[in-house]
Amino acid sequence: MRTMLKGIAASDGVVCGQVYRLVDPDLTVHRRAITNLDNEVNRFHQALEAAVSDVEAIKTRATKNLGTESAQVFSAHIVMLKDPELTTRVDAQIRDQQLNAEVALANVVQAYEHSFAGLTDNPYMQERITDLHDVTKRVTAHLLRVPLPDLALVDHPVIVVTHDLIPSDTVSVNPRYILGFITDLGGRTSHSSILARSMALPAVVGTKTATTQLTNGEMVILNGTHGQVMVDPDADELAKARTTMHQRTVNQKRLNRLRHHGTVSQDGVGVTLAANIGTAQDLPSILKNGAEAVGLMRTEFLYMDAAELPSEDDQFDVYKQVLTALAPRPVVIRTLDIGGDKPLPYLKHKPETNPFMGDRAIRQSLTHQNVFRSQLRALLRASAFGNLRIMFPMIATLDEFRQAKAIYDDERSALTVAQVPMGHVKIGMMVEVPAAALLADRFAQEVDFMSIGTNDLIGYTMAADRTNQDVAYLYQPYHPAILRLVNRVITAGHSAGIPVAMCGEMAGDPIAVPLLLGMGLDEFSMGAGSILKTRRLISQLNAHDLQALVETALNSASTSQEVITMVQAAVPDLLKS
Amino acid sequence: MRTMLKGIAASDGVVCGQVYRLVDPDLTVHRRAITNLDNEVNRFHQALEAAVSDVEAIKTRATKNLGTESAQVFSAHIVMLKDPELTTRVDAQIRDQQLNAEVALANVVQAYEHSFAGLTDNPYMQERITDLHDVTKRVTAHLLRVPLPDLALVDHPVIVVTHDLIPSDTVSVNPRYILGFITDLGGRTSHSSILARSMALPAVVGTKTATTQLTNGEMVILNGTHGQVMVDPDADELAKARTTMHQRTVNQKRLNRLRHHGTVSQDGVGVTLAANIGTAQDLPSILKNGAEAVGLMRTEFLYMDAAELPSEDDQFDVYKQVLTALAPRPVVIRTLDIGGDKPLPYLKHKPETNPFMGDRAIRQSLTHQNVFRSQLRALLRASAFGNLRIMFPMIATLDEFRQAKAIYDDERSALTVAQVPMGHVKIGMMVEVPAAALLADRFAQEVDFMSIGTNDLIGYTMAADRTNQDVAYLYQPYHPAILRLVNRVITAGHSAGIPVAMCGEMAGDPIAVPLLLGMGLDEFSMGAGSILKTRRLISQLNAHDLQALVETALNSASTSQEVITMVQAAVPDLLKS
Repeated sequence: MRTMLKGIAASDGVVCGQVYRLVDPDLTVHRRAITNLDNEVNRFHQALEAAVSDVEAIKTRATKNLGTESAQVFSAHIVMLKDPELTTRVDAQIRDQQLNAEVALANVVQAYEHSFAGLTDNPYMQERITDLHDVTKRVTAHLLRVPLPDLALVDHPVIVVTHDLIPSDTVSVNPRYILGFITDLGGRTSHSSILARSMALPAVVGTKTATTQLTNGEMVILNGTHGQVMVDPDADELAKARTTMHQRTVNQKRLNRLRHHGTVSQDGVGVTLAANIGTAQDLPSILKNGAEAVGLMRTEFLYMDAAELPSEDDQFDVYKQVLTALAPRPVVIRTLDIGGDKPLPYLKHKPETNPFMGDRAIRQSLTHQNVFRSQLRALLRASAFGNLRIMFPMIATLDEFRQAKAIYDDERSALTVAQVPMGHVKIGMMVEVPAAALLADRFAQEVDFMSIGTNDLIGYTMAADRTNQDVAYLYQPYHPAILRLVNRVITAGHSAGIPVAMCGEMAGDPIAVPLLLGMGLDEFSMGAGSILKTRRLISQLNAHDLQALVETALNSASTSQEVITMVQAAVPDLLKS
Repeated sequence: MRTMLKGIAASDGVVCGQVYRLVDPDLTVHRRAITNLDNEVNRFHQALEAAVSDVEAIKTRATKNLGTESAQVFSAHIVMLKDPELTTRVDAQIRDQQLNAEVALANVVQAYEHSFAGLTDNPYMQERITDLHDVTKRVTAHLLRVPLPDLALVDHPVIVVTHDLIPSDTVSVNPRYILGFITDLGGRTSHSSILARSMALPAVVGTKTATTQLTNGEMVILNGTHGQVMVDPDADELAKARTTMHQRTVNQKRLNRLRHHGTVSQDGVGVTLAANIGTAQDLPSILKNGAEAVGLMRTEFLYMDAAELPSEDDQFDVYKQVLTALAPRPVVIRTLDIGGDKPLPYLKHKPETNPFMGDRAIRQSLTHQNVFRSQLRALLRASAFGNLRIMFPMIATLDEFRQAKAIYDDERSALTVAQVPMGHVKIGMMVEVPAAALLADRFAQEVDFMSIGTNDLIGYTMAADRTNQDVAYLYQPYHPAILRLVNRVITAGHSAGIPVAMCGEMAGDPIAVPLLLGMGLDEFSMGAGSILKTRRLISQLNAHDLQALVETALNSASTSQEVITMVQAAVPDLLKS
């Protein structure tokens, strides 16, 4: 019977293909009588080694398929598997209590979890617990000699159906053989969804029942744009889906021709389309997608992937690599945005009731000045190799900006005295705290540039944590209040003669782009995958004509839905592909 | 030797007097051999009964001295002491393990704490743990026959010096005998400080060393306005302090003459000075202080102090009592503002990473409609007895307001059909989400009134949780961005012909009042203790002249400090007393 499963549209695109159920086997462990303790300890060590070699193989494939950033999690898994404390504790359980290895391992893991118990609200520790489960599952499967379902065994394209994606699921496979994902759990911002989008594969998440309703080999049409899965479609529907898929391919080929073009509206207004990046590993992808600049380089990964504070030289190397690759195009590097929700293991940080409204980003940099100064020195030294712009995150008051700027000036003077070669550097700020947006005219007198960080700006303005499913509906980029703030920042920047960029997800959103172009935004910075589509869209828009749309949206719209309707009416033909 | 202790200015005023150290005795418990188990169980039960009768006596005094709201915590203590599970578990420990009662009690309490371990980030559970310690201390003191220091024994006025105030410390005393408080721990928003302000007693908190540096009977001058304690002052200094104290008394008497006056500026502009209340028990205090209305009645206590959802009739009784007492003056009652940071035991609520930006207030009311509808029915029935205005908290979008209003209309229609008598009711909103302030012109078309909730509005606009000490410096009511938002709301309200009130702490702040009067704010709602001072201040201000100050602050100020300087220059003589 043809049925329709509904879920959350997590990653764009339509695809049809056969179901591959990636569902865990029963890994329940039972206590057994052990005759030879040495043998049992050996059996555990062999399983551990087998697991390490599995993870190393996965890591190699992941690095190749998804880049170093996505593969970092497996380094953490290998460190866990090789942790002498784990081995010693499991060995001791086997010997002291005559336990079989799988039960000994389960006991030790349970004890670890117990010691984490007070930290379950901490997202960093939650990730560590997920890692621990991932690692334990792999070792236990080896001990029980139960094969884990493995996408590496797949030899033809399939649609993966699973309870929830975990990182190791998705990377142990030739990406050509995965057509898309369907999961029981997750929302648009969950790990599964982000992974699917980073692989540019269609996905529907949060179906609740996909793993129980779908069987291996069953044909489905996955529509990641509408969040629907059609089970057992008829020939007509398959033909229609294949036409859609074909159009997407043709479309992508056409888009690729725009790679080396500038971004100019139909009436000749030029803007910059820039990319957001996390590490130097993202460079090939953004260059392939025609980025004209880096509008936001986050520097958190440099700090979060390390066991200790990265040295000034380590940072210098990364910044230099990115600046050199882009030169003479500008690269905006944001100083460390770390805080209570993503603590660094080597920086003490109190748990906070509301980490998003806590001691993070520039607030931390101004109190942990040694970390901040070391980052500024690394940036200044790298500035000799390209076109560097430094951006301070989470600025709420002019006092904060002035303090950060004074520290920068101080470090620059010291390097000048030491005759270290440096380039010209512009100093700007993220506008992501509502107070900064409201006071943009005053800030614009003192900064070289402003970049609107819409993800946080929308969160604070709507008082809604977008990672919280219960209030995610309040994350409304088109809410007239957000548009008014954004417009205020652009107007203030232009009055003071400085450029205004946007580096949140909104900058690549097809409904928002006509409004932002009409407001006069200078630079749109986004994920690599959105650049070419946005370039095409802008080339079809008339910036001057859109000013009337902006006026109406700012002054007459009361709700997000009204704004969407206005945009759709103003540019009816452009938002379809 | 004369020394000066520094701390945090927690509650205004200067006072001199002798130190009374309220420091706990050693309550360490040791395991003892038990000969007669029945006797030991009896000993435990007797200590429990003695503790219950202590707490009941304290509760009676607390209700009399501080009102029902402050006394509620003791009801929780009594419930804990009478909890059959506690008794059964301690009895079992005594009998099964031949333990003495104090050790048995300690073990059981430790087990409770252990089961709370995963919830230490939850402020509600933290309070329960504090309650548990408070209760245990009292029973243990009875078991050890060690007297707890007891302010009830004090027979002359003293300054209480303690590590940290707990509720039972402060209420077991004739309030005439407490001159003020000095603590080692705490900040301006800690429990100790709130308690001191609610008792209108000067306090310095967070001195770190007061309990070790000060001895019983020592003379000190406590300056709660500057956060200083002078130890062993000389005759001159004592005389000076006594003059200050005398002036305060004279001042208060003068203020009391304003009780039955309206609030009118020097140039004849009339405004309403209203009070914020939490329960009906606050009525005597606000009437004594000359409140012209209730600008905010919170309804959380009705729900938080109960073990189950309060019935519609229970709520009706409370609302009716308040409306009747104030009639014909208006009473603004805010619908339930509950959420992740203050969960109700009988409503399931997921732990949230950022509860301030989570599923709270109107967001919850729209999903838990049964709770919301019952509250609206109680309010509508009570509306027959006075001048009711209903206010929805945390409105971020017009959709939310429209939904809430539709539910109200629905309940009103049903009651009309049932011929239940009702009064005319105005329906308004809190403006505390930045998006609502930014879009105030659109909201003003659909609401009957707006009330600016500055506590949350400042928090979201500055992206700072004011209960987090590390970022509390960002809680800046005079930040020009905040002033711009406030002014925008007032202007929008007046353009649409509706009144605008403010019900955050800012409304009673002497630096903010001249600005708010200049902006044309219609109603200032504040804690009872600030009303008379604010009335005097407004009577000395010229509303028309202040418009120039407002213009400058809005258009030329870049920082909070600049605004403060401007206000001080504009009204130099009025901000001193």
